[in-house]
Amino acid sequence: MSKSVPIKPSSAIVGAGRTRFGELWYENPEKLLFEAGLSCLESVDKGLGRKDIEACFFGSFLYQVTNKMGLIPGYMAKELGLNIPITMTEAACASGGSALYNACMAIDSGRHDVVLVGAFEKMTDRSDKIMDDLMFAAGSNEFNTGFSFPGLYATMMSRYIYDYSGGEVECDESLAMISCKNHHHAVNNKYAQFKREFSVEQVMKSTPVADPIRILHCSPISDGAAALIITSPERAKEFTDTPIYIVASQQATDHVSLYTRDSLTSVKATKLAMNAALQQAKLKMEHVQMAEVHDCFTIEEMMFLEDSGYYKTGEGWRKVHESYESGEGSKHIPYLNENHELIVNPGGGLKADGHPVGATGIRQAHECFIQMRGEAGGHQVEEAIDTALAHNIGGTGGVCNVHILRRGN
Amino acid sequence: MSKSVPIKPSSAIVGAGRTRFGELWYENPEKLLFEAGLSCLESVDKGLGRKDIEACFFGSFLYQVTNKMGLIPGYMAKELGLNIPITMTEAACASGGSALYNACMAIDSGRHDVVLVGAFEKMTDRSDKIMDDLMFAAGSNEFNTGFSFPGLYATMMSRYIYDYSGGEVECDESLAMISCKNHHHAVNNKYAQFKREFSVEQVMKSTPVADPIRILHCSPISDGAAALIITSPERAKEFTDTPIYIVASQQATDHVSLYTRDSLTSVKATKLAMNAALQQAKLKMEHVQMAEVHDCFTIEEMMFLEDSGYYKTGEGWRKVHESYESGEGSKHIPYLNENHELIVNPGGGLKADGHPVGATGIRQAHECFIQMRGEAGGHQVEEAIDTALAHNIGGTGGVCNVHILRRGN
Repeated sequence: MSKSVPIKPSSAIVGAGRTRFGELWYENPEKLLFEAGLSCLESVDKGLGRKDIEACFFGSFLYQVTNKMGLIPGYMAKELGLNIPITMTEAACASGGSALYNACMAIDSGRHDVVLVGAFEKMTDRSDKIMDDLMFAAGSNEFNTGFSFPGLYATMMSRYIYDYSGGEVECDESLAMISCKNHHHAVNNKYAQFKREFSVEQVMKSTPVADPIRILHCSPISDGAAALIITSPERAKEFTDTPIYIVASQQATDHVSLYTRDSLTSVKATKLAMNAALQQAKLKMEHVQMAEVHDCFTIEEMMFLEDSGYYKTGEGWRKVHESYESGEGSKHIPYLNENHELIVNPGGGLKADGHPVGATGIRQAHECFIQMRGEAGGHQVEEAIDTALAHNIGGTGGVCNVHILRRGN
Repeated sequence: MSKSVPIKPSSAIVGAGRTRFGELWYENPEKLLFEAGLSCLESVDKGLGRKDIEACFFGSFLYQVTNKMGLIPGYMAKELGLNIPITMTEAACASGGSALYNACMAIDSGRHDVVLVGAFEKMTDRSDKIMDDLMFAAGSNEFNTGFSFPGLYATMMSRYIYDYSGGEVECDESLAMISCKNHHHAVNNKYAQFKREFSVEQVMKSTPVADPIRILHCSPISDGAAALIITSPERAKEFTDTPIYIVASQQATDHVSLYTRDSLTSVKATKLAMNAALQQAKLKMEHVQMAEVHDCFTIEEMMFLEDSGYYKTGEGWRKVHESYESGEGSKHIPYLNENHELIVNPGGGLKADGHPVGATGIRQAHECFIQMRGEAGGHQVEEAIDTALAHNIGGTGGVCNVHILRRGN
């Protein structure tokens, strides 16, 4: 796409920060958020102080259960030393995306020009119970019948394999390759929880969790936080010469439980949010060069490739296989489609960078920001990225937030 | 104030509904929200269907802990049969106010014209643990040193009595009179949890909870839900000839813990949000005829009367005493100030109507809506109300939301 096509941005990211993700046993949630917020403020090229912040939006999922804390606006008012409006949003694993979505509306409303958006999750403290707690993001019937999250995604993955591959081993390999690619991308990401490579065979022979899902198909339990400063597009250049513009911000919802959904092999909320976002930005998937995709389980990345329209329904697994084989050895392995290359999760995604659930949506925007500005260091994508998107899912697809980001204006 | 002064409204309430509040053992949260939402849709004079709703904002505090559910957007997408954007906000007892505040921004942003705002809390199921859980809205240091919420407000009440009355019994009586007034107002409110009167003596001799707070100074543990339909001001008259306009929507925050606050006898977040709201609406307190005040404990209503500037600091208790004595026997007992009368909590407030914590902010707007439209039935205020406000606090004042509502435009 020509960079000269004018698109009206909704807001602009002028700073982004994060903590490393992983098992951060000695940190507490406020400290993580503080560290992410501070590195975010420090990243603003022309300077932006605490007192320039006019409002905040935060996202987290299980902070009450895990950390025995509520009323985050009050905690953060003290940390910031400000008495500004602060909103806390919860949308399970899309809590971060939901915070960003609402922050964009606050900018659109004309009420605020400079907004801090932060998200965090501290999961390891509760490692004995967290698998049950995560089921708050599923239907109570699903919890009561003994499902876990790997179980729910295993249902989707089984059906995908059954419907589209007829059991061909290539399909299983493709689902493993998504994991291998994301682990490969994380090797030089200084923030990532796992910086090691796995072979397709290692993924396929890793410990079974919920057949056909094995441990190396799953994103990990993680701690971490991420933060952004977003401003009105008009004021962005006061803070940096290279703002990243948010040209689409969309959210869609769907049934929380799988059993009443239209499909097990597709996420309706992704389709709706993606369509709306591309329409808002007046773009098509072939204009997007990089996508941060919600790969909580490898099947979710596969479904995104089809739900977004990048690959045709049922054909994703063949395309992923071809792409992985032809890309092996490259620093980043793009998904190939006719004359287009799409780099997905260049920092390792949820799989390898880590998945502190509430923080993920903001971590995705952080990754787009640093990649588009050429600031990703060891895991910098070699090609210039002008257009990127972030796709953040709650539960098995009860919520989906999509943000499209562009360099220049 | 002359009704002819034009004020630019931010949005308009065109429908409002609620459940009764109380110990609703046989209901679940989704059903309560559904009942409130349905009665809200039915209250729209010219009709408004489910499919007209473009986005939703919900508020609740302890739903994860108490009801083992998260991802409310997914639950509600199914209940509504819609795939629209849904945001869940948490701000402890101000969760409802926070949802309304963000819904107003969504209208201001121009993204949505018709928004459902709902809030709920189902507390009784967890009655053994709820006193501890509520402390998520306080500082962890406060919880760890053994404070409960009555204890925190007892600290504020003790200090108020000490600073301003020097121990005069009239001050204790005033703090009891707030409870008597609110119970008196609730007698004919069909939704209220407690429909019975108490004498000043009964309040002062009721069971001690945390000295000087007695059980009849406290709002109860309640279940319930409330909902509003808000629209852009331009479209309000498509749905009703008598919309209630939101002319100010403000939020302020402050430290979650008491020990680092500026004052124990005043709530800074109330002062800031009240000032901002009156400024936004271009109004003064003497223009306000009715206020829904967050009387979680009677001392909070007393502090509001001073924090809002209606009474001078330290003089509230004398004025409350005079007002109660001169108003006894009336259907509603107003707070008197020079040539002005202010009716506070005409349906009984949190004290007698009930306090399902997350739902309260929306219940307050519901009360303003029915009172201003003359639809409050048995507890209808006799004088016409043109200007009302809703004051919703989170914790001991970590968050405060203020909304000012007006009839006509």
